Amino acid sequence: VAAALITGGGFGETGGPGQKLQDEIVAACRQHDIRLLGPNTAGFFNPGQRVTANFAPMVSDFSPGTIAIVSQSGAMSVVIGAMLESCGLGVSIGVGIGNGADIAAPEVLEYLAGHRGTNAIAVYLEGVMDGRRQYEAITKVTKIKPVVVYTVGKSDIGEFAVSHTGKMVGSFALKKAALVQAGAVVVSSSTELVDAVHALSKVRLPPHPSPGVGLLTGQAGPAIIMTDYLRSRSVSIPELETASVEAIARELPLRTHIKNPVDTARPDQQSFEKVLAILAADPAIDLLLTYTMHEPMCVQPLQLFRSLKGTTEKPLLFGTAGTPDDIGPVMRGAEAMGIPAYAAPERAATAVRAIIEDARAAWRKQRQPVSGDRKTTVVKEITAEPDEAEAKQILEHLDLAAPPGRICGNHAEAMAAFAVLKKPLVLKMVSAGLAHKTEIGGVHLDICSQSQLVQALEKIDAIDWPKRKRYLLEEMAPEGLDIIIGAKNDDSFGPSVLLGLGGVAAEALGDFSLRLAPLTIRDGLEMIGELRGAALFDAYRGGPVYNRQEVAAALVRIGSFMGEHPEVREMDLNPVRVYEERIIVLDALIICNKRG
Amino acid sequence: VAAALITGGGFGETGGPGQKLQDEIVAACRQHDIRLLGPNTAGFFNPGQRVTANFAPMVSDFSPGTIAIVSQSGAMSVVIGAMLESCGLGVSIGVGIGNGADIAAPEVLEYLAGHRGTNAIAVYLEGVMDGRRQYEAITKVTKIKPVVVYTVGKSDIGEFAVSHTGKMVGSFALKKAALVQAGAVVVSSSTELVDAVHALSKVRLPPHPSPGVGLLTGQAGPAIIMTDYLRSRSVSIPELETASVEAIARELPLRTHIKNPVDTARPDQQSFEKVLAILAADPAIDLLLTYTMHEPMCVQPLQLFRSLKGTTEKPLLFGTAGTPDDIGPVMRGAEAMGIPAYAAPERAATAVRAIIEDARAAWRKQRQPVSGDRKTTVVKEITAEPDEAEAKQILEHLDLAAPPGRICGNHAEAMAAFAVLKKPLVLKMVSAGLAHKTEIGGVHLDICSQSQLVQALEKIDAIDWPKRKRYLLEEMAPEGLDIIIGAKNDDSFGPSVLLGLGGVAAEALGDFSLRLAPLTIRDGLEMIGELRGAALFDAYRGGPVYNRQEVAAALVRIGSFMGEHPEVREMDLNPVRVYEERIIVLDALIICNKRG
Repeated sequence: VAAALITGGGFGETGGPGQKLQDEIVAACRQHDIRLLGPNTAGFFNPGQRVTANFAPMVSDFSPGTIAIVSQSGAMSVVIGAMLESCGLGVSIGVGIGNGADIAAPEVLEYLAGHRGTNAIAVYLEGVMDGRRQYEAITKVTKIKPVVVYTVGKSDIGEFAVSHTGKMVGSFALKKAALVQAGAVVVSSSTELVDAVHALSKVRLPPHPSPGVGLLTGQAGPAIIMTDYLRSRSVSIPELETASVEAIARELPLRTHIKNPVDTARPDQQSFEKVLAILAADPAIDLLLTYTMHEPMCVQPLQLFRSLKGTTEKPLLFGTAGTPDDIGPVMRGAEAMGIPAYAAPERAATAVRAIIEDARAAWRKQRQPVSGDRKTTVVKEITAEPDEAEAKQILEHLDLAAPPGRICGNHAEAMAAFAVLKKPLVLKMVSAGLAHKTEIGGVHLDICSQSQLVQALEKIDAIDWPKRKRYLLEEMAPEGLDIIIGAKNDDSFGPSVLLGLGGVAAEALGDFSLRLAPLTIRDGLEMIGELRGAALFDAYRGGPVYNRQEVAAALVRIGSFMGEHPEVREMDLNPVRVYEERIIVLDALIICNKRG
Repeated sequence: VAAALITGGGFGETGGPGQKLQDEIVAACRQHDIRLLGPNTAGFFNPGQRVTANFAPMVSDFSPGTIAIVSQSGAMSVVIGAMLESCGLGVSIGVGIGNGADIAAPEVLEYLAGHRGTNAIAVYLEGVMDGRRQYEAITKVTKIKPVVVYTVGKSDIGEFAVSHTGKMVGSFALKKAALVQAGAVVVSSSTELVDAVHALSKVRLPPHPSPGVGLLTGQAGPAIIMTDYLRSRSVSIPELETASVEAIARELPLRTHIKNPVDTARPDQQSFEKVLAILAADPAIDLLLTYTMHEPMCVQPLQLFRSLKGTTEKPLLFGTAGTPDDIGPVMRGAEAMGIPAYAAPERAATAVRAIIEDARAAWRKQRQPVSGDRKTTVVKEITAEPDEAEAKQILEHLDLAAPPGRICGNHAEAMAAFAVLKKPLVLKMVSAGLAHKTEIGGVHLDICSQSQLVQALEKIDAIDWPKRKRYLLEEMAPEGLDIIIGAKNDDSFGPSVLLGLGGVAAEALGDFSLRLAPLTIRDGLEMIGELRGAALFDAYRGGPVYNRQEVAAALVRIGSFMGEHPEVREMDLNPVRVYEERIIVLDALIICNKRG
């Protein structure tokens, strides 16, 4: 016996004694070189080989196809299979991982990358046991085949909450960011999963920063719906060349929408064919989408597709509407010609978006890191959790400056520092692992006089705090744009970096971008661009242009540092103040795995 | 001839000469008492009466049913009809409005409210021609029948952009806010439209602030998906009573999920029936949702439903998965028993969410305004566009205070004001219609000395500005929570009020809530609750508790003011500073329809 499948439940998923049973099973398998799928899964199936190693009898009715399914939930591997079957598609291999005691999703994904009968892979994920391993597997697999992932957990809460960064980021956000970074197309329902993987099993574009979609419809309503769907998700429906527009104008007398999207308003077959050929020939167009309700006396889609096939290599998707008896044969005919067909305008648009996102992800991934992206840091292992002043010293080694200041052990040292620093000053209480000093009255701003300083020192002295306290007296930084740079060595995903807008309001709104480290400068610049408030960097309401390059470089260096320092659990630079020329770290918190 | 339908295009939708033709047709219809549908529409249909007044031949294949369709796009009325037909549902009446030259959506909706054969109404909207009329129609109709609206335009841009409020709010946001306020269930795709209206045609809950959903599944994967979907959309899946949980524990040996959601992990028929009956009997549960893959040797759904029907009046929805041949008869059987059935977990969850949102909207609408909600304002008609100082005087009449300050016509008056006001001060350039004074250097903060004041005055004098300038010298307000209160007399929707978080970052993130006026205090409090950053009001990170009641009262008064002053086009109070006891308007811009 080389492999075993256990469908039964009551193991690791129930904790305690169940986990112990599972551990014993795994030990026995290891001892005898048996690979194990499960426990707590429906099993697997391969319709082409008539393999139905699954507790759900319906898998024996599934048709062979080119789409593979990898599902953490055994039941969902069957549900997705049934949904593919209902769309007239089949399955190459379907695998329910269950508890993943031995065989987990990354290994199955890597196997499928080399599996001849599989064109595209549909993945359903809940929690992620080994996030870094999965990230690396998907990064590899998407170079060969498209991967579409549906994952749940939006309503989750971050599993740690020491730093502000930690509070902002639940595991869902990190999981989703890692999937996108690895090159997967991430969707948000099982219907979207089926529609996206369906399209990608037939059509994959080469890597491209923003492929252009040419949209041709027989009715304006669906044109508006699909255009709104795609544009609101940053898919480009580019304006056509003047020559194309003029040629289309000759075919369409009403000329309401002829620049792309193009709406024919119920034309004859000949005009529809000509306009589609003009769209296909336009150099701005990489992918065609056409939609027409079932009206055979106006347009016969299959004849349209045949006429187009001779004139262009550009892939086409098709959307339609009608009773099942009318549109069934047309949709099957389109599929037979390699044209994914959909019976709702948003489902066709979902498919287009998946193809575009796959091409964009491939383009991002093929870029080489540019010179200067990586920088080896020279900080020794951190053996005791640093306080704010020590954290800022560590950051100096990463070329991240703090405001001019002095760390003071007593009032006399603080008075001496006061004399040499430029007023106004800020006085802060300093102690290792002190995450919320503002809330307990440990921060005093706008100190201009010795008497103000004495007052502030006495207030800090009065704070009830179990550990050693010191004072940090710093010059107050001029106004600028406040951001948050956070970082985390996640148990599952390893080093990751966060960028957020600073300030209490922005933090409450949760505007942030996440990446697994290591990063390139381009990753850092993309993270800035992903902020909903990215416009604040660019002379917003007459303000200055803030330095994106310095922010990106800081993100790269923090990412490298986290990778080199597994002893650091979290880092929270909050705020970092950005100027036109440089950035300054106003506050810094470093939390270690062994709290000291 | 009492009525006419024009399907042809080339009228108002093409502008210019087409609009003139349309106007002539309307004039002819009015003259001869002929009601007109169209032009530029597919027409209408009533399968029960065999009426197919439509250019799409497929409508003659549609089955009679209890769902009506009102679509601005003629094609989409047919597309939605085809999608309902594909789900085995039918249509009572389907109407494409087209250009709506005479008969528009509100009138059709009001007709359908009294139409016996219609249980629920599906609406597709693009732009809105008479938003206030539509708001009032939907408000009336939803008291009688549920209305589900799918509307597009997310990628649009606000059609006016004088004030910051104007820039923040495109027509899509106002349209959507008005629909929700009127009591419609708003969805974001044609599939969701069909799934939601399907459910509401069979199940409508009485008005309720937050009905509880009882979820019972045969497989954990779909349970997790539906729970995540519903909880992330604020649908309550409440924990059951202890007695219910204990009774369920006796039926389910694994006990992984037994508090709601309840997952049976593939039980026998008898346990499934018993657990569903326990869920149905729990007082926290108002609506039941059950999901099981097609596995007839485990659970036979139709038998399950029959056994439940005898024991509870609480409505039930059903989700399943399987090949079409297997689940078709089961789903049709469920539908025949009044149980909406769905073939994907998120589609069943979408249906549940629609029923919950409909019940919540009805609950919000049945509340009576509480005493003090409305306040008649005493401001005369505004004949010339006010500058900031004049705007603040108007606001004083609405009990909205500005900081202590003086308006000054020259340097000498400013120096006299300086002597009596409490430092630090802010000096602002004042002129009617001046929307962006910060950007042009018209605001000078932190003025403590006469020399600083002179410098600031001279800087304002140097600004190139075509109109009369004055100076406003004001005391600087203490720190607090900054919000934006905006208002607009929209051409389509009439008076509306906006609440947003203040500060440049929050503004850039577009965190705001909108309502049509008039408002009640409860509306105002709900608007605060709808802000993503609402937590900032409640001792966020150790800060104070800011006064929600004063903010809500201000929103009510501003809404009433806008309704009484159609000559005012926009109002932008940005920021308004909120404290524990009161609010202060720091800046105010009032824009009139006739710019002065």
